Amino acid sequence: MNKSQETKKIILNNALKIASQSGFSAISIGKLAAETGMSKSGLFSHFGSKENLLLSIIEEAKQIFLKNVIIPAQKIENGINRLYAFFENWINYLQNEEIVGGCLFYKTTVEVSLENGILKEKLREIMNNWIKFLKNEVKTAIDKKQIQKQIEPEKFVFEIISMIRGAIWFYTFIEEKNAYNLCLTKITEILNSIRT
Amino acid sequence: MNKSQETKKIILNNALKIASQSGFSAISIGKLAAETGMSKSGLFSHFGSKENLLLSIIEEAKQIFLKNVIIPAQKIENGINRLYAFFENWINYLQNEEIVGGCLFYKTTVEVSLENGILKEKLREIMNNWIKFLKNEVKTAIDKKQIQKQIEPEKFVFEIISMIRGAIWFYTFIEEKNAYNLCLTKITEILNSIRT
Repeated sequence: MNKSQETKKIILNNALKIASQSGFSAISIGKLAAETGMSKSGLFSHFGSKENLLLSIIEEAKQIFLKNVIIPAQKIENGINRLYAFFENWINYLQNEEIVGGCLFYKTTVEVSLENGILKEKLREIMNNWIKFLKNEVKTAIDKKQIQKQIEPEKFVFEIISMIRGAIWFYTFIEEKNAYNLCLTKITEILNSIRT
Repeated sequence: MNKSQETKKIILNNALKIASQSGFSAISIGKLAAETGMSKSGLFSHFGSKENLLLSIIEEAKQIFLKNVIIPAQKIENGINRLYAFFENWINYLQNEEIVGGCLFYKTTVEVSLENGILKEKLREIMNNWIKFLKNEVKTAIDKKQIQKQIEPEKFVFEIISMIRGAIWFYTFIEEKNAYNLCLTKITEILNSIRT
């Protein structure tokens, strides 16, 4: 990484942390520039526009999710055990808030919906890919006769993703400190109940 | 209702609709006054402050939830059937978005969390009461031997509320038009699986 790439990475990490804690509306080019000891125009030279900076934040959050949740689980043979690993890694990632200071995808949902622009489209695309990806993993586990064949992948993925989003809400808003444990216990029970 | 109360009701309905669609940040005293043909000071005379107006919006949303979700279900004898009625009414209420234009409690969660003030406290109090209330209804159904005694009310309520919040997200963000049906089907399956 050269000096310019390093600087860009520092700005991005900073910006991702702010957006994960407080949403995109909290991103101020002036503040980010000050914090990294740059001029506003110096900062713009790295990203071109505020919209590009926000898109880069989303891309960075996606890479962190890939690295912490998806890739480690893919080392396990596909089927029900890999499926469990995706969920366990996901919950661990949510609990390790220090990684990014919160879940960007949760924090920005309502905010980007109001804009109806390219940020919403980018986030929806990532979510839709993740939903589709998980459905395929469920199908594989059914094909391998590890999950009962009457299970509908769509309904199953709806249930699990809802539970995980619910856990974020219970943890952050209701301050139910046990929310992530409850969630993983519940997911384990569900997986055990649909095993062949 | 006298003229002043009627005016207050009109302002409140208008404000609730805006906040349910776009959050509290979309509430502008100036715009609300213009829409109801009043001066800003005339509008303030009804609510005292913007914060009081926002608290009144939350209270109004709570009353609508009570009227549409809780009270009709309470006409059913307590136990598993009443529990089902709470969830069915809740999902119907979410589908009838025209009532208020969206779910205020869902739309404002992140926004009020960032402020950490009285609005967050009011919303958390309502949510905590609702969670506690549902847990008690589950306990009653267990005591009446309609739900299996090994069911933990806390885990069950966590699961159902998460699923319903998930359905709002799938419906509004992912634009999964079938989300509420999926959710009610899943809740019915869960209730059937824990019946005595």
